[in-house]
Amino acid sequence: MIYLDHAAATPVSKKVFEAMEPYFSHEFFNPSAAYLPAKKVSAEYEAAKGVIAHAIGAKSHDLVITAGATEANNLAFSFLNKEPVFSSSGLEKSEMSYAGQPAEPSPSETNLSVSSGIYIPDFSNHFIIQKIQVLYLSTEHDSVRKVAEKYGGAAIDVDRNGRILLDDLKAKITDDTRLISVALVNNELGTIQPLSEIAAIIRKVRLDRLSRGVKTPLYLHSDASQAMNLLNVNVARLGVDLLTLNAAKIYGPKGVGALYVSHEVKLKPLNYGGGQEMGLRSGTENVPGVMGFAKAVEEVTKHLNGNRKKYALWRKILLDELQGYELVNKKHTLDNFVVLCYNGIDAERLIFLLEDRGVYLSTGAACAASKGVKSHVLKAIGLSDSEIAGSLRITLGETNTEEQIHEAAKLINEAVKIERRRR
Amino acid sequence: MIYLDHAAATPVSKKVFEAMEPYFSHEFFNPSAAYLPAKKVSAEYEAAKGVIAHAIGAKSHDLVITAGATEANNLAFSFLNKEPVFSSSGLEKSEMSYAGQPAEPSPSETNLSVSSGIYIPDFSNHFIIQKIQVLYLSTEHDSVRKVAEKYGGAAIDVDRNGRILLDDLKAKITDDTRLISVALVNNELGTIQPLSEIAAIIRKVRLDRLSRGVKTPLYLHSDASQAMNLLNVNVARLGVDLLTLNAAKIYGPKGVGALYVSHEVKLKPLNYGGGQEMGLRSGTENVPGVMGFAKAVEEVTKHLNGNRKKYALWRKILLDELQGYELVNKKHTLDNFVVLCYNGIDAERLIFLLEDRGVYLSTGAACAASKGVKSHVLKAIGLSDSEIAGSLRITLGETNTEEQIHEAAKLINEAVKIERRRR
Repeated sequence: MIYLDHAAATPVSKKVFEAMEPYFSHEFFNPSAAYLPAKKVSAEYEAAKGVIAHAIGAKSHDLVITAGATEANNLAFSFLNKEPVFSSSGLEKSEMSYAGQPAEPSPSETNLSVSSGIYIPDFSNHFIIQKIQVLYLSTEHDSVRKVAEKYGGAAIDVDRNGRILLDDLKAKITDDTRLISVALVNNELGTIQPLSEIAAIIRKVRLDRLSRGVKTPLYLHSDASQAMNLLNVNVARLGVDLLTLNAAKIYGPKGVGALYVSHEVKLKPLNYGGGQEMGLRSGTENVPGVMGFAKAVEEVTKHLNGNRKKYALWRKILLDELQGYELVNKKHTLDNFVVLCYNGIDAERLIFLLEDRGVYLSTGAACAASKGVKSHVLKAIGLSDSEIAGSLRITLGETNTEEQIHEAAKLINEAVKIERRRR
Repeated sequence: MIYLDHAAATPVSKKVFEAMEPYFSHEFFNPSAAYLPAKKVSAEYEAAKGVIAHAIGAKSHDLVITAGATEANNLAFSFLNKEPVFSSSGLEKSEMSYAGQPAEPSPSETNLSVSSGIYIPDFSNHFIIQKIQVLYLSTEHDSVRKVAEKYGGAAIDVDRNGRILLDDLKAKITDDTRLISVALVNNELGTIQPLSEIAAIIRKVRLDRLSRGVKTPLYLHSDASQAMNLLNVNVARLGVDLLTLNAAKIYGPKGVGALYVSHEVKLKPLNYGGGQEMGLRSGTENVPGVMGFAKAVEEVTKHLNGNRKKYALWRKILLDELQGYELVNKKHTLDNFVVLCYNGIDAERLIFLLEDRGVYLSTGAACAASKGVKSHVLKAIGLSDSEIAGSLRITLGETNTEEQIHEAAKLINEAVKIERRRR
């Protein structure tokens, strides 16, 4: 097996598994219980959170543990006003996304749960307006895009490499903007975003708002799920107020993630219950999961430099030995991402041919791929439909060896030849 | 160690651990990926969901996997209108919980995110009303009570044994009631509720609504987290539309639960993203967790009869050998719950004395206990403050032996004697 889809899933490493194991059957106590063995588990859980936090330059109490990056991304948006904003006079057309139609709802079904605006019964000529509170990169994962849409969001454009167009960002910030969400590393291209430059723009906007007495806050959120494998992630240096982490992408367990939350941001919980995680995320703590997450963070940060060199070499081998492709992610990319376009070829068919030869890779994000949806990421960087159809994502990782990289190049070349001949 | 707090946490059993293990490091693939090994994992994940569903008389696609019971309980309420219901004329006082004050909100902070109602700016004499949509048992876990409050909820009273007062339920149902939430087994007392009798009342209300042309639906939700250890849980026989399950209370892993959803209930997702779990719960599937959950369900249902007999015997031993207590949960209780009141004694001190002797138990729910809050459950069944302060919860489980039960009775008697002497 040559597994080339590490952006979709990573195996739990041996060390991570060993860190989790004692907490399943032996140290299984509920961290909220009052007796000593439970308090010991609670202390170890907090220490593990401390390890994760320390790796990004934060403290244990800055982190909310979640069931993964999706939940963390959703939680990051929770300080926004989900409820529609009222207007009796109407705002400027450009400021609002109005979708309501004056229609008479049945009394039992009267509700206001729409994202863009509906007519309010009984109050003629008044509409509910959803302001654009969020700006997000057009290449963001669905767990950011779809949430942003719920709160009133607009997309920021990217260039051919998938990098944010800072001028477009600047142009789209209004006094209604409360959150800007830009993934540190894109999950389909590996594109690294200039977060500190975005943070600098945000600081200017904040100062300008302050000088004009505008009290609306503006925060920066980043999904760093894919980033920790090869980047030193530090919240202060990046200038983020909210940061999403994901154990499952860094050789930790599935079903565990975290949201870093700066002291200024006042989130609302997504669910209610026992009040764990400082009231922001109720539910008995997933102790083994967090112990594994901490070990994964520890391991991945320990080997950053070595891994960066290793993947840079392997990427070069692939680009040298592969034939007849166009490289999609040319610049500003993590070295373990190789996105190739075989124009005129159906990449789906390539994947099946390669699967027969024991090579596993994908056309894009696993969750989008399973629904047969064309990648919105490749579309956003300006690829044509046929270019998108011919695109392959290779993501290298810990399961690979240099020998496998040569072998993969050979097998991919052969598969491409077979496909070209068929046509 | 004699662990007598199985309602707070159970260790992962050997068989459950073995069922999970292969999915951490070997079968680690993302179930949404397109290649064969990932599709195999996806099929095994669905089959595991099928095992869980089968145990409660349902199908795989009736279950939404969550990160635990808290999330499942929160999700169960998501079909309700979270947004306030409007009224220009005002409803009957008895139908509404009005908490708003006519105050001038600042323009930037105008929002409607209150649970009970606020004044709408610009529309004088109009108030936002939250109707009572939910009735829940006064003894429910915080993950039901606190959510119910968000949607507009009222509590149903219980008797001295913690059983629902069906007449109180009947009296509180109005045409606004959309959901009734009653845990099959209470987590502090072990009280088993007569769900099929509640379901029969609901059927009558539905027929009555139908005959009057009232279209508001009425559903029954039950948190069965504690129930599966000793009860045969079947959704059709119980008559529930929504049912919460929890792996962590039945010797499965922490951080995994499920919500059974009947076809009629149209839930809204709590979070957005890749669209997993039929769009109701996005995020990469926690494959090892669900494999373990399925094995735990399989094991627990296999040994129901033997376990019932075993715990009934152990409960009898405790009641015979313990001295100077009053039994709190006399009737309609699961046999692995023994709740005792030592009036005039501080149970917190008993717990510390027993901890020194290697006996671990609690005063009530772990999450409430950790916050030093008096049990709302013991209050609801009519215990005085001093009775509540003297109450101990023993919950028996798989880590126990008959020898341990005798030993625990002896050690508890000794601790009580020491405490009585001290006073």
